[in-house]
Amino acid sequence: MQRALNVSREQNFPEWYQAVVDQADLAENSPVRGCMIIKPWGYGVWELIQSALDRRIRETGHENCYFPLFIPLSFLAQEASHVEGFAKEMAVVTHHRLKTIDGKLMVDPDSALEEPLVVRPTSETIIGDAFRRWINSWRDLPILLNQWANVVRWEMRTRMFLRTTEFLWQEGHTAHVGEADAMQETLKMLEVYRELAEDILAMPVAVGEKPENERFPGAVSTFSIEAMMQDGKALQAGTSHYLGTNFSRAQNIRYQSASGELEYCHTTSWGVSTRLIGGVIMTHGDDDGLRLPPRIAPHQVVIVPMLREKPEDAAVLAFCDELKNDLDSLSAFQAPLRAHLDRKSTRAANKRWDWVRRGAPILLEIGPRDAANGVVTLIRRDRLRDGDRIVSTAFPRREFLAQVSAILVDIQGNLFHEAKTRLESNIRNDLATFEAIAEYFGAASEDDNSGFKGWVRAPWARPDGAELEQIDARLKGLKLSLRNVPQGQTRPAGRCVFTGREAVEDILIARAY
Amino acid sequence: MQRALNVSREQNFPEWYQAVVDQADLAENSPVRGCMIIKPWGYGVWELIQSALDRRIRETGHENCYFPLFIPLSFLAQEASHVEGFAKEMAVVTHHRLKTIDGKLMVDPDSALEEPLVVRPTSETIIGDAFRRWINSWRDLPILLNQWANVVRWEMRTRMFLRTTEFLWQEGHTAHVGEADAMQETLKMLEVYRELAEDILAMPVAVGEKPENERFPGAVSTFSIEAMMQDGKALQAGTSHYLGTNFSRAQNIRYQSASGELEYCHTTSWGVSTRLIGGVIMTHGDDDGLRLPPRIAPHQVVIVPMLREKPEDAAVLAFCDELKNDLDSLSAFQAPLRAHLDRKSTRAANKRWDWVRRGAPILLEIGPRDAANGVVTLIRRDRLRDGDRIVSTAFPRREFLAQVSAILVDIQGNLFHEAKTRLESNIRNDLATFEAIAEYFGAASEDDNSGFKGWVRAPWARPDGAELEQIDARLKGLKLSLRNVPQGQTRPAGRCVFTGREAVEDILIARAY
Repeated sequence: MQRALNVSREQNFPEWYQAVVDQADLAENSPVRGCMIIKPWGYGVWELIQSALDRRIRETGHENCYFPLFIPLSFLAQEASHVEGFAKEMAVVTHHRLKTIDGKLMVDPDSALEEPLVVRPTSETIIGDAFRRWINSWRDLPILLNQWANVVRWEMRTRMFLRTTEFLWQEGHTAHVGEADAMQETLKMLEVYRELAEDILAMPVAVGEKPENERFPGAVSTFSIEAMMQDGKALQAGTSHYLGTNFSRAQNIRYQSASGELEYCHTTSWGVSTRLIGGVIMTHGDDDGLRLPPRIAPHQVVIVPMLREKPEDAAVLAFCDELKNDLDSLSAFQAPLRAHLDRKSTRAANKRWDWVRRGAPILLEIGPRDAANGVVTLIRRDRLRDGDRIVSTAFPRREFLAQVSAILVDIQGNLFHEAKTRLESNIRNDLATFEAIAEYFGAASEDDNSGFKGWVRAPWARPDGAELEQIDARLKGLKLSLRNVPQGQTRPAGRCVFTGREAVEDILIARAY
Repeated sequence: MQRALNVSREQNFPEWYQAVVDQADLAENSPVRGCMIIKPWGYGVWELIQSALDRRIRETGHENCYFPLFIPLSFLAQEASHVEGFAKEMAVVTHHRLKTIDGKLMVDPDSALEEPLVVRPTSETIIGDAFRRWINSWRDLPILLNQWANVVRWEMRTRMFLRTTEFLWQEGHTAHVGEADAMQETLKMLEVYRELAEDILAMPVAVGEKPENERFPGAVSTFSIEAMMQDGKALQAGTSHYLGTNFSRAQNIRYQSASGELEYCHTTSWGVSTRLIGGVIMTHGDDDGLRLPPRIAPHQVVIVPMLREKPEDAAVLAFCDELKNDLDSLSAFQAPLRAHLDRKSTRAANKRWDWVRRGAPILLEIGPRDAANGVVTLIRRDRLRDGDRIVSTAFPRREFLAQVSAILVDIQGNLFHEAKTRLESNIRNDLATFEAIAEYFGAASEDDNSGFKGWVRAPWARPDGAELEQIDARLKGLKLSLRNVPQGQTRPAGRCVFTGREAVEDILIARAY
């Protein structure tokens, strides 16, 4: 069967992923190692994700602000486990001047900084330093801040959107009087992330707490949303951390309580990044390219006039212009509908396939006959084909305009439903021993594309310390990891698959990005 | 006279500026040299500026995208005059790992990068590299891109918002088939900046072309908007550059023309930054703090309940809540009105002065009697005082709600008018010789606060090369500089104040930030 991409998910999932990133015009590799150029279509998706999340961050009482890109080396040394987790691979600014020496532009050796600066991998330490200065009394709490920023982690193996040296994200940082308040905040933002993933990205997620060995460096508890990709792997799509008093003790962030005592603040942090776009690709993409949920599609409806460089073109374009105007006056998802008229002089068939690969939810193809008859021919990207055939439906113009908002809602729901079914039907919970799990996943090779395995949900006794490290090492040997302990468990647990002891809860196990 | 700041513009303008930045809660210095922390109130102003400008950038056909933070050293070496202008002071990343050595966190000497990376001071070279790859035919042109980003220039003397090591900006980068098209783009975006400054920031500007010696490094022509600050100095508030084929020759950015020839693209770039906030402060601030034009005020109306920790408080708060709800349903400037109810438990008088210093355009003070009588007491920030007395006006609630949008429009217009009058009445155009100009400005001291001098508009013969350099040096001796050649000149020019030759146009001369 002929598809719009020259590699299928089944043939080679990683290559398919890269083909979508390229051919949907989302991003490309830059000449700077591990850094990507986010192209307008990909950046448009990010802006819509930002806008939906930013509204929710404000509605929950947070304010945006901006902290410096650079963090003094000494700040990172303050919180021991934070350093341990992050200090390894970072971009370090050591000089502040270039100089032409013997005709060649070089780093001026005389411009060494007294203290090297690290390009922020995350901002707990520099924001904590401000909290220390800003917080005096319990009356100053809570402080609820967020910033949209770029961060840099010097990753060894990079993959577009999923793991890049520089990426874009938001990071929330808050300080509270006590554990209850801070934990409530942590869970509130976790729920905001779930809603973003499921309602906006149409990407169903498992919501839960990470086991001890997967915590953020310096956190007391880390919670995540985990999405299932079409190769069965898990993608950690967002995290929310209760930091306890770890950072406030390290940085002396204290407040005077109502009774006059000096107390340490309880802090949180939480973030999602451009990685979400990787999640959207691997949740909704098919062998014809990307399929975008309408809520994050920069163009929800694309009009493609079938131009032939003939006199009829004028009537076709006039009809399309009017259609575009009509669409511009409509709403979808309580916001103005986003329509686009593709006037490019390329062939209509090329335009069709470009927009199919980019994942525009609705495509309208308008030929001279359509224009004359007041008809639009509609292609839904989520139901592009019936077998090999492209499915298109003709609508009288008025009827289409009356229905288009509902069709977009239907596409959004359809994509979510499809992914939700995949998630729910691919979690095995009948594997009672580690050996059964190992056998199920089979031997792991470096590039394992051997069929869809999904996740395993298994009871465990919440082992910790050295025992957990050993379990983690055994799992790593199978390229598996512990994902999270899903919220809202009701099922009574059996025996721990790792220790044989009585289980206290279920945990998700999967291969992961 | 008692004012809300403890330093006045007249006493010490630079100290007054810093006091506004601090006490209006806009920003503060960070522990990182020359980098600022933009606090929620200041960042809120920036977000409103961004939103107004972003809309105009899209409406003129540009698309947002994102390019890497890092630029390989070799890229900067490509365009000779660009290097010359920028290469001096930049943050250079030379290593990618930290390591604990003898218990101390240090840069790992084994992690040196093969090629150092510069933190972008501007992105012409890295975006030009992509243009080279993306552009093949005239059909690919124009390319109209913009990005919102942070940039770093290692400034020796920094001042909050005006000149910081890291700052936030947008940078537009476009490529065109020819000079006419590229120049049209350059001037179109200059006009967008004028409109942003005047209509949104209420900051009148002189719009014109920079003389040769003030051009952007690598540009053929640079245009600017220049605003007059309350100390008489000029602030370059935005620039738009026609780069000709300088960058495309250096980077081999070519297209095949309709006739099949390989031609160099003509490129442009244009940007405004968080510096605009400095301009707003020095245009509208007074000795009581900031005065924000309503279009960029995060809260346009602030409700301050006069609470006394007494039973009447409940009725006051109920009245304020209702008022806030009513305001939330109104529009101002074709957008939802932004109202805020300050529920903090601090004293009402403190709250009043906090909001006065922050520059909220309308303050409503509501006491028990107001609540009982359905009255609001309104303070306009732009007309705070009559002599020493604070001016407040009582309105019946309904009447206030019917008028509030119009009052906001009036405040916006009033601030613009005040600044426009200052600009227009402080440009001397009767100084016919360099000596007269020198005498007018007087000897310059390092921190010159000796009264308001404004600008000089003088005819000149557009000298260039070494002659212009000499003129520039003489002006620098007086701490003066050539600002721009205003657009739309009709007045016939006389003799050049610098050369005595026949003048071709007028140019603006001023002290500047």
